[in-house]
Amino acid sequence: MAEALHMRGLNVTMVQRSAQVMSTLDPEMGQLLNRALLHNGIDLRVNETVQGFDQKAGLAVAVTTDKQTIPADLIILGLGVTPNSDLAKDAGIPLGPKDSIQVNSMQQTETANIWAAGDCAQSYHLVSRHPVHIALGTVANKQGRIAGMNLGGRPAAFPGVVGTAITKFMDTECARTGLNEREIKALGLEYSTGLIEAHTLPRYYPGSAPISVKVLAEKGSSRLLGVQIVGGPGSAKRIDTAATALHAGFSLEEMLYLDLSYAPPFAGVWDPIVIAARMALKEG
Amino acid sequence: MAEALHMRGLNVTMVQRSAQVMSTLDPEMGQLLNRALLHNGIDLRVNETVQGFDQKAGLAVAVTTDKQTIPADLIILGLGVTPNSDLAKDAGIPLGPKDSIQVNSMQQTETANIWAAGDCAQSYHLVSRHPVHIALGTVANKQGRIAGMNLGGRPAAFPGVVGTAITKFMDTECARTGLNEREIKALGLEYSTGLIEAHTLPRYYPGSAPISVKVLAEKGSSRLLGVQIVGGPGSAKRIDTAATALHAGFSLEEMLYLDLSYAPPFAGVWDPIVIAARMALKEG
Repeated sequence: MAEALHMRGLNVTMVQRSAQVMSTLDPEMGQLLNRALLHNGIDLRVNETVQGFDQKAGLAVAVTTDKQTIPADLIILGLGVTPNSDLAKDAGIPLGPKDSIQVNSMQQTETANIWAAGDCAQSYHLVSRHPVHIALGTVANKQGRIAGMNLGGRPAAFPGVVGTAITKFMDTECARTGLNEREIKALGLEYSTGLIEAHTLPRYYPGSAPISVKVLAEKGSSRLLGVQIVGGPGSAKRIDTAATALHAGFSLEEMLYLDLSYAPPFAGVWDPIVIAARMALKEG
Repeated sequence: MAEALHMRGLNVTMVQRSAQVMSTLDPEMGQLLNRALLHNGIDLRVNETVQGFDQKAGLAVAVTTDKQTIPADLIILGLGVTPNSDLAKDAGIPLGPKDSIQVNSMQQTETANIWAAGDCAQSYHLVSRHPVHIALGTVANKQGRIAGMNLGGRPAAFPGVVGTAITKFMDTECARTGLNEREIKALGLEYSTGLIEAHTLPRYYPGSAPISVKVLAEKGSSRLLGVQIVGGPGSAKRIDTAATALHAGFSLEEMLYLDLSYAPPFAGVWDPIVIAARMALKEG
């Protein structure tokens, strides 16, 4: 919304309770997004909490925070996502993480002949090995397909998710897959980190843009746990390599010599994810 | 070269002995490249063999083929790549595919204390499970790193390649990984095929471009054998997902629910590689 309104020429103020936008990224990666917002003229205010609205003649005309009052013509609330699971709850169907509907890999609830799929339902996280609630269109589509096949009499199972997400603000792209530091700590795992700044293309090639990559891996086993990317055009979709590696359960060693595509219009000789994996391996 | 000269405003004629450019792609995928060349004004002549050159005052002034004589100011020969392995051969070091130097996974030749890496040396192909000669910078860099580590006293092994390559002509990108039909047939494997035309982004999103994806898999096991991509901007780098899946030895079933990144500026909900894998699974 900030991008769309900014492109329409509106003055945009963002009030963020935490220290960064994109709480799904680790702080140093989220800061890169903060910078992109500020650099593009968004008035980003972090560590500031919305407390209410000033009204005039029944219309909201200003946002009041714990620090100030911000006059506004248009106010948009982005408050997160909650599963719409009341119907299931009232029917006595067990709920899982964040009150999403508990389902097995066939998208079956605990109640016979009741199925759930999409933003209301939980998923199984292949990296944390715990149920999780991830409200994304790509997960919803897969779950819907699985539920439909089972309802139609053709048994199918959803293997689970690895927590992949992607978005952009203007020319700055970001993506993540697997677990971030907060999620890894919550599991009590010890981890090593590789964080690098590189370029999407060889620096001499037109269109080369900065890309930051962070790789997280389990200490000892060196099992890949998560990857985060923030960078210019052509950065973020590379997360799919990491997502596929997470599905495979790869260790950092198995990342080092991946036969990824190289030609100057597309990439450097060593993929930034591979370089970051090498850094994490040195540390771990 | 055709692209560079075309962009400089030169009239470019390409004489190709076979029916298509990019012999590393299957015919229907190579044809898409042929079309891109023709569409951009390259005078592409396929199934035509260069036989010699007309000279005037010691300078080549025309190319003679089995069909005609083509006057030219500048003639560039693209005749393929041959390993520069004479030194090794003369020293009695065994050679492998296409006379590349035989090495083990440590880049050691059969002769003590002699190592080889790069375009002169063979690689192990993880999909065909045979030695192969692939003269690409990305393979050479990996082999050089392995050889250097071993020479420096730190043992390291190169796991092998999956045959990934990428290039482009103007706005048309292409990439491949794994084995193509010719290579699969040479191994005597039975295979199924999934071939789809899709778009890089949802069609309503600016910059959405056509993308064709071909997936090849072993019949019976449904083991992924190869993927080829030809399409507009943003197409070809997606080959890395398939390359990583080949490293993992994934079956088509394991491709179907990969948690790949989705947001309208980056992709559709179902990745074209996944859709093509689904098609191949139906056939197989």
